[in-house]
Amino acid sequence: MTNPATIDAVLAKVDSGLDQSLERLFHLLRIKSISTDPAYAAECRRAADWIAGELNGLGFDASARPTPGHPVVVAHGPEQPGTHALFYAHYDVQPVDPLNLWHTDPFDPQIVEKDGRKIIVARGASDDKGQMLTFIEACRAWKAATGALPIRVSLMLEGEEESGGKNLPPFMRDNADELKADIALVCDTDMWDRQTPSITTMLRGLVADEIEITAANKDLHSGMFGNAARNPNQVLAEIIASLRAPDGSVTLPGFYDDVAEISPELKAQWAGLGFDDKAFLGEAGLSVPAGEQSRSVLEMLWARPTCEINGMIGGYTGDGFKTVIPAKASAKISFRLVSGMQPDKIRAAFRAHVEKMVPPDCSVKFTPHGGSPAITVPADGEHLRRALQGLSDEWNKPAVITGSGGSIPVAGDFKSILGLDTLLIGFAHVDDQIHSPNEKYDLESFHRGIRSWVRVLGALAD
Amino acid sequence: MTNPATIDAVLAKVDSGLDQSLERLFHLLRIKSISTDPAYAAECRRAADWIAGELNGLGFDASARPTPGHPVVVAHGPEQPGTHALFYAHYDVQPVDPLNLWHTDPFDPQIVEKDGRKIIVARGASDDKGQMLTFIEACRAWKAATGALPIRVSLMLEGEEESGGKNLPPFMRDNADELKADIALVCDTDMWDRQTPSITTMLRGLVADEIEITAANKDLHSGMFGNAARNPNQVLAEIIASLRAPDGSVTLPGFYDDVAEISPELKAQWAGLGFDDKAFLGEAGLSVPAGEQSRSVLEMLWARPTCEINGMIGGYTGDGFKTVIPAKASAKISFRLVSGMQPDKIRAAFRAHVEKMVPPDCSVKFTPHGGSPAITVPADGEHLRRALQGLSDEWNKPAVITGSGGSIPVAGDFKSILGLDTLLIGFAHVDDQIHSPNEKYDLESFHRGIRSWVRVLGALAD
Repeated sequence: MTNPATIDAVLAKVDSGLDQSLERLFHLLRIKSISTDPAYAAECRRAADWIAGELNGLGFDASARPTPGHPVVVAHGPEQPGTHALFYAHYDVQPVDPLNLWHTDPFDPQIVEKDGRKIIVARGASDDKGQMLTFIEACRAWKAATGALPIRVSLMLEGEEESGGKNLPPFMRDNADELKADIALVCDTDMWDRQTPSITTMLRGLVADEIEITAANKDLHSGMFGNAARNPNQVLAEIIASLRAPDGSVTLPGFYDDVAEISPELKAQWAGLGFDDKAFLGEAGLSVPAGEQSRSVLEMLWARPTCEINGMIGGYTGDGFKTVIPAKASAKISFRLVSGMQPDKIRAAFRAHVEKMVPPDCSVKFTPHGGSPAITVPADGEHLRRALQGLSDEWNKPAVITGSGGSIPVAGDFKSILGLDTLLIGFAHVDDQIHSPNEKYDLESFHRGIRSWVRVLGALAD
Repeated sequence: MTNPATIDAVLAKVDSGLDQSLERLFHLLRIKSISTDPAYAAECRRAADWIAGELNGLGFDASARPTPGHPVVVAHGPEQPGTHALFYAHYDVQPVDPLNLWHTDPFDPQIVEKDGRKIIVARGASDDKGQMLTFIEACRAWKAATGALPIRVSLMLEGEEESGGKNLPPFMRDNADELKADIALVCDTDMWDRQTPSITTMLRGLVADEIEITAANKDLHSGMFGNAARNPNQVLAEIIASLRAPDGSVTLPGFYDDVAEISPELKAQWAGLGFDDKAFLGEAGLSVPAGEQSRSVLEMLWARPTCEINGMIGGYTGDGFKTVIPAKASAKISFRLVSGMQPDKIRAAFRAHVEKMVPPDCSVKFTPHGGSPAITVPADGEHLRRALQGLSDEWNKPAVITGSGGSIPVAGDFKSILGLDTLLIGFAHVDDQIHSPNEKYDLESFHRGIRSWVRVLGALAD
């Protein structure tokens, strides 16, 4: 553990250098690194090069490395004993449309006051340029105050997170030896609330599949064929309906076989979070949890698998009415997995169930849309304990361990490709409007995010 | 009944005047009376005016009468004792796209030879200009040979059958006294096969409804909300799945209460039609009838009600995958009704069933898309008997009585607004490609269709 006086000196550098940190953030925010639009490929390259330059200036051995898509910035700090952390964030951003809903130019960052708080408004302010720079600026402060980082740090900064990220796993596989470390750090998540820092240690996995039911060899007139011809809309609906029981559980045989109950300690901690089921659902206009009736909402979201129909279509869906029996109907269906569940096994169980339900004269075509297992960071790990301590020190409040109902594929890749556990530490807030017009990052998120990383880096040192 | 020698004289006029009849048909086929496209409104008007002019030339009191849409041509022959028939057809046509699939200009009619038969190729050749002119040319032959029609005839020729036909029922209500007659004749249907004329006496009715299930007040992320939030796709699928039992029957309470079994005589007649279940389904790539397992395919189609999901949509349906829980999902659902079933009662039963299945946090919105009862022409009626005789005489084969799984709304309107039974007599064939590129009408359909109407008109005379 680092000497508290040293930490204080580094924090003082953060505070005195905040304006310059903001200037650098603004410089990066002005670069239009929209990864999904080929028109902005040069801007993505420019962002990668600028970041590599900054990191080289901090003593890293950094470069923007080519991929079939946008570059990955890789940087290595000098070798030193002790923990070696690999930090991940992404420099690409979402498109900005609808542009007319922005109050200011999305690529001309502004600090404005809202609800008594200063906020940084720009595309990428929160997701993920602001979050990325909290870490880089913490490294800068360490360097400025002590001449070195307290642990060895490498960085891997992606440019395609907002556009599928297909090139990162092969890049990681190709450079697995170089990217080896002891722990991965990711800054792309929220705090629990404005006062409470958190580390996300449970992420659900995902199995996504598309099914297409075909009956007749062409669309039929429902007057001429109705009753006699199999209707694929009906068949698809029966398949979908069969996936959930009235008690909210998923019916696939063996679906819960590998699902473990969470520990009483974690259950107690989650109960202590003061999560407000009513408020959470109420914000979406809902009031009754739809999942397994014996479970709390947090359990449903973080610790229980689900099956969701993300899309379905069949027949005539335009204005008015058309008396058609369509030839085909299809659905996009996904399963969120929790720790222990194997994506391949769930996909196979799903497909076997569907095949069994397909009636005469119908065929089914499956199209996979990816799969990844759930991620769980051991709750008793030393890195986790130290990082929690660093965050608690900064915010004067115990940091909490949370789950997430969503999937962050890179965490799965760190585990499966590099064998690394990931600590997801972020300072964003649910009202940051990421992916939407008027994206913002609280100035406090930026400032205390930098300070938080200063402390976490210190805490990770021996 | 008319003297056979008179009939022969009229038929001789048909045969000798066939080339002129074809010229008139070609003139009408060249008019681009596409009713659904406002760009062709003047062409619709031109078609109506041309027909009215022809009918005036035949001694009818005819005019193109305004509606909020395209005109309705109404024509009355001179008063005379005995049966008064009201003939219906439509002068509008479907759009012609995709134009590149036509082998010839759709509005430049051609007679070509195909499979050893002469066919008239043009948009509307069969549906319904060719069929309409079989009747008008029969009137012309009667007039030419005898100076008068054998019965009193009125005509009501619609210009919006292919675009919803919303203006016809109010027009009929507004002019109900003027349109009163003893029997309605419609020429817009097929023969049973190339050798066998038929009269359709059973048409299924229709109740069409749209349901929209709303859960959350916005689309949600399936990671962040999956399990906790109600998924309207799932809810909709459960509702749809509940509508059919495994034995193929419809599950709505009371659905079959008013459905009568067909008479043993009709059953025997249908059995004698030689309908080939395998061939019928096989043409659509199917082999197993989907409806009530105890029924024949013809019964399923003509004499049993059905419930069909004509369209459904919810969530993301584009390329790739999006992990969304949509706010809404919707379906277009229709019921085909048979004699005795009341559209309002079925719609109410459906909605009550849906309402009962809507779970907490969800609401349902219903949008009606029309309803009409089934039509049955009494099998023992005098007009039907005489018309069958006329057709049998022309084709040297007993005409058959058939049902239709589809709905022809005007037949329902004739019954409900004017109190008229309808005889559906047509000479089209299933391979006529109506609504599709390269629509055709067999030259034989046109020629012997005219001859058939000559005989039917004669048979309807006292």
